[in-house]
Amino acid sequence: MSEAALRELALAVRNWGRWGADDEIGTLNYITPARIAAASRLVTSGKVFALGIPLQREGPQSGTRARFNPIHTMFRDGGDQPRDAAELVEMQGYGGSDDWIVMPLQCVTQWDSLAHVFDSGKMYNGYDARLVSSGGAARNSIDKTKDKIVGRGVLLDVARYKGVSHLEPGYAITVEDLEGTAARQRVEVQSGDLLLVRTGHMSTYLRKGSWNHFDLDPSPGVSVHTAPWLHAKQVAAIASDNYAVEVRPSELPPFRSPFHICAIPNMGLTLGEIFYLEDLAADCETDGRYAFLLVAPPLPVTRAVGTPINPYAMK
Amino acid sequence: MSEAALRELALAVRNWGRWGADDEIGTLNYITPARIAAASRLVTSGKVFALGIPLQREGPQSGTRARFNPIHTMFRDGGDQPRDAAELVEMQGYGGSDDWIVMPLQCVTQWDSLAHVFDSGKMYNGYDARLVSSGGAARNSIDKTKDKIVGRGVLLDVARYKGVSHLEPGYAITVEDLEGTAARQRVEVQSGDLLLVRTGHMSTYLRKGSWNHFDLDPSPGVSVHTAPWLHAKQVAAIASDNYAVEVRPSELPPFRSPFHICAIPNMGLTLGEIFYLEDLAADCETDGRYAFLLVAPPLPVTRAVGTPINPYAMK
Amino acid sequence: MSEAALRELALAVRNWGRWGADDEIGTLNYITPARIAAASRLVTSGKVFALGIPLQREGPQSGTRARFNPIHTMFRDGGDQPRDAAELVEMQGYGGSDDWIVMPLQCVTQWDSLAHVFDSGKMYNGYDARLVSSGGAARNSIDKTKDKIVGRGVLLDVARYKGVSHLEPGYAITVEDLEGTAARQRVEVQSGDLLLVRTGHMSTYLRKGSWNHFDLDPSPGVSVHTAPWLHAKQVAAIASDNYAVEVRPSELPPFRSPFHICAIPNMGLTLGEIFYLEDLAADCETDGRYAFLLVAPPLPVTRAVGTPINPYAMK
Amino acid sequence: MSEAALRELALAVRNWGRWGADDEIGTLNYITPARIAAASRLVTSGKVFALGIPLQREGPQSGTRARFNPIHTMFRDGGDQPRDAAELVEMQGYGGSDDWIVMPLQCVTQWDSLAHVFDSGKMYNGYDARLVSSGGAARNSIDKTKDKIVGRGVLLDVARYKGVSHLEPGYAITVEDLEGTAARQRVEVQSGDLLLVRTGHMSTYLRKGSWNHFDLDPSPGVSVHTAPWLHAKQVAAIASDNYAVEVRPSELPPFRSPFHICAIPNMGLTLGEIFYLEDLAADCETDGRYAFLLVAPPLPVTRAVGTPINPYAMK
Repeated sequence: MSEAALRELALAVRNWGRWGADDEIGTLNYITPARIAAASRLVTSGKVFALGIPLQREGPQSGTRARFNPIHTMFRDGGDQPRDAAELVEMQGYGGSDDWIVMPLQCVTQWDSLAHVFDSGKMYNGYDARLVSSGGAARNSIDKTKDKIVGRGVLLDVARYKGVSHLEPGYAITVEDLEGTAARQRVEVQSGDLLLVRTGHMSTYLRKGSWNHFDLDPSPGVSVHTAPWLHAKQVAAIASDNYAVEVRPSELPPFRSPFHICAIPNMGLTLGEIFYLEDLAADCETDGRYAFLLVAPPLPVTRAVGTPINPYAMK
Repeated sequence: MSEAALRELALAVRNWGRWGADDEIGTLNYITPARIAAASRLVTSGKVFALGIPLQREGPQSGTRARFNPIHTMFRDGGDQPRDAAELVEMQGYGGSDDWIVMPLQCVTQWDSLAHVFDSGKMYNGYDARLVSSGGAARNSIDKTKDKIVGRGVLLDVARYKGVSHLEPGYAITVEDLEGTAARQRVEVQSGDLLLVRTGHMSTYLRKGSWNHFDLDPSPGVSVHTAPWLHAKQVAAIASDNYAVEVRPSELPPFRSPFHICAIPNMGLTLGEIFYLEDLAADCETDGRYAFLLVAPPLPVTRAVGTPINPYAMK
Repeated sequence: MSEAALRELALAVRNWGRWGADDEIGTLNYITPARIAAASRLVTSGKVFALGIPLQREGPQSGTRARFNPIHTMFRDGGDQPRDAAELVEMQGYGGSDDWIVMPLQCVTQWDSLAHVFDSGKMYNGYDARLVSSGGAARNSIDKTKDKIVGRGVLLDVARYKGVSHLEPGYAITVEDLEGTAARQRVEVQSGDLLLVRTGHMSTYLRKGSWNHFDLDPSPGVSVHTAPWLHAKQVAAIASDNYAVEVRPSELPPFRSPFHICAIPNMGLTLGEIFYLEDLAADCETDGRYAFLLVAPPLPVTRAVGTPINPYAMK
Repeated sequence: MSEAALRELALAVRNWGRWGADDEIGTLNYITPARIAAASRLVTSGKVFALGIPLQREGPQSGTRARFNPIHTMFRDGGDQPRDAAELVEMQGYGGSDDWIVMPLQCVTQWDSLAHVFDSGKMYNGYDARLVSSGGAARNSIDKTKDKIVGRGVLLDVARYKGVSHLEPGYAITVEDLEGTAARQRVEVQSGDLLLVRTGHMSTYLRKGSWNHFDLDPSPGVSVHTAPWLHAKQVAAIASDNYAVEVRPSELPPFRSPFHICAIPNMGLTLGEIFYLEDLAADCETDGRYAFLLVAPPLPVTRAVGTPINPYAMK
């Protein structure tokens, strides 16, 4: 693949202006109230699958680049209880605990905002990348999606389709893989769907009991060539159980993330990363139902470019 | 009210052992798959109301006690794009942005975990308060609820029932108020409901355009005497649009939060605070439907005692 | 004063190229080993004055702009000791404590680096301001001064010279004030001196026992018109007991800090702020010795633009 | 070695009550004004050696235990300058930069406070270890030493004495080593000295250009059996170029740090860790002068148990 081919692909899926010059949420516009209501009807058994991984010091970040694992600490704890009546008065009661956290907004299961990746100095919808400064993102920040990320979720379990526990690191998922998986699962990807692509990659770390190098290792993921298919299908968002949705190493060095370049600044597609899909996938295999209600609210952090999440898949 | 009366009330609503000696989620046990499925059928129009307030420096915390407002900052931004081909190679592409945050876990719209408040050296279910140490909560931490906080939401708009834009600061909401509101709204509080009590208090700050002193000012809120009613109704969780669910100043000085003492360590009731209810309340008034699907996933922070949230009320 | 006059003043004191095209420490170059050795001979009684204010939540920052007060918290504490032999083994001993901090680098007693203020897109020595990006300062960062900030300290106690406990907020200290103070004190400002200017402003907050609004209130401070005098005297650094060295409100609105513009990007003068000078000043008044050894090491934070400090004045 | 032997050693060096029941600084009491004045006379050439290592993401902490490396970030940078006259007014000038940091207080070159290590539930001077809670250390905090850490520094270059570039990891420095080094260097350790022990260990990491595993690897360091000698010599503080002053692995498993137990809670000895001694040691070898003025001010963080420092050795 050449940079020229990447540019051609990016332009082919570009949605700038499609939802107006002021739009900041891109393909999330495909989600409609009617689709949300229809997706809610998929909840028949009342099963809930939480797709967020734990926020803790032993997490998937190696800390070699900007991102580190969440650092959690206490303000008050069980050592701060009153020991006598005078302390009870001073402490205004029997005591309690308070805590806080320091974390990169993209260090665990997360949504990228449309301000996360640039293409030639521009963000999605043509906004200047310089609108993201030390003070945060003046356009395309994650809080613009605060009531937008809910709809029909569809799991495409590509690893199971391929008959493996996990795809090999470096394997680039093709359009044929996605279509084959959907066909086997008897599910059709529709406009406004929130697509969850399971590679099985996370399962190898869960089995080892260690996230060590998860952010740095090669991994399976979607090929940059799936971008036109996702564009044609009018997918609202795509998420996966790997670090970056797309395959690593890159299909086009030195570009670290060519799919990101097509998806975020051009298509305006919201990406979800590090999704825990194991329990959900097992259940879908069991009951044969790969579509469900997916509710994945972002934290509305003003001017932020990402958000940790704990999505609920409900069946 | 006397401390003895508080103790009597606390014992009357105590649920220790009710769901087993190892339970760590308390009244969230009232939520069942059947109730989740039933609640999902309430989603007919596809409307979504996001109940989380913005996470930003201009927030509801005065910083005079432990809690401060979220501090958001960038690792990379639009000033860090490649300026030529050599930089493109070095930066592995067209550039992007990354950010992080420092925040108390209870600084915005949030759930308290059952490790947040102690009663005489004990947490909910009788666990020793000393199990909450600098390393976090060994029992009753918020991550134990990671797939639990979804169900039927019921809004009780007490301010509207009383015919006012907001209840007066210091007003203690009674059982009669809750029952009167439910009756006027033709809704019945049921076992497993997630109860949202609107006082209108937040609306006065929103009108002023400033959160100044929101955490310190007197506010309306539920009376400690509503605890037995909530216990009898088998409410799964209660949340409100004020700082502490309960009325301020306290009904029993020097105890800052007597309702908390009944609710959290004794009943095992999950409390939600600083909920934005204005748009949801207006819609309920319009269509007369005060029950809905409420999806409010916690961030699964290991050993944490609270979590910021952005709940979705779906109708 | 006009912006044109500011520009003229700035150019008059500009030191770009004076110490080579690669210089990043500006007037600290005036400090020589011989001057350090001479200053050390001023230490005759062995008295030590610590000039740093406490780092704590109740500090001088209002939090209305970017800067907040230091947030200190524990990782481990006295609640984390072993309770029996098994825990002793697990905890590898009798236990201990560990802590950490979140803080702006300029929130307490501090040095500004020469990357802190820009003039028309440039830093000191003509470096492009864009060299300060989300990743920090590629030029003029504080760590470049890591072994440089020690020499002869001279206190000019302008408040005492004027016969007042503190200068009035808004009072602009003139060249005549500085010369009159030096004359009364029988001390001569020399090349390479670290100049400490006492306004007495901090003392009014210390008396009240509250830093409230210290960062926002008007304050006395040096006039922008002292810049040529400091330039001629070859002062190595200047520090004061107010928030910004210079007078507030500004002598040239809308410029918040015209003296900073002359001093930092043009002269390359290191500024020190929020210095605690009360005990030192009292001692100097008593023994009539206003010159001493000043040792004020920066924390060598890579690419940082400021540093908290606790300078020692030794006599 | 047995735990009983450790207990005997600890009691032999215990200084509780020596400087009064209220003392919180321990052996720093050995430093007197006369000794500070005498030490200042050692500054004859005006040479300054900064002993602090850089504060940066690529630091000596692996992050596997509580401590992580400093995380530095910007609030404002060169991308936030005014682009026209209107922005100049809005931004109140030509722009500038501001930054902040998150860091463990013991992550780089640092002093331990006397609240850092406990012995059987007690701190130095007999204070209850529970006085260190989530709110910090009520006794023996580092800010109590705010104007205390300056005096005669003495370098004992044990590696050079042994004729090696660095002592082997795991080598326990003996009293004979310390005395032999002092004799070779023709320097006598005196009451009130700040002792710097060079093992050469850090030099192997500096040569590799990576701190990788510095906090976890075995290292040379003082034996627990040097404690009585340090006690007899009335050393005010001891610091070294390794992670923990004392040898690793421990001489008495499972106790991770038996020397710490003798030194901190019993003797009240201030320990300094991760000191950069290479340039200073080379200079001492050259001029044969191993004593100098050492100025190492702590940051006066209220209730803290450690502090990052950048000590100046001046000759």
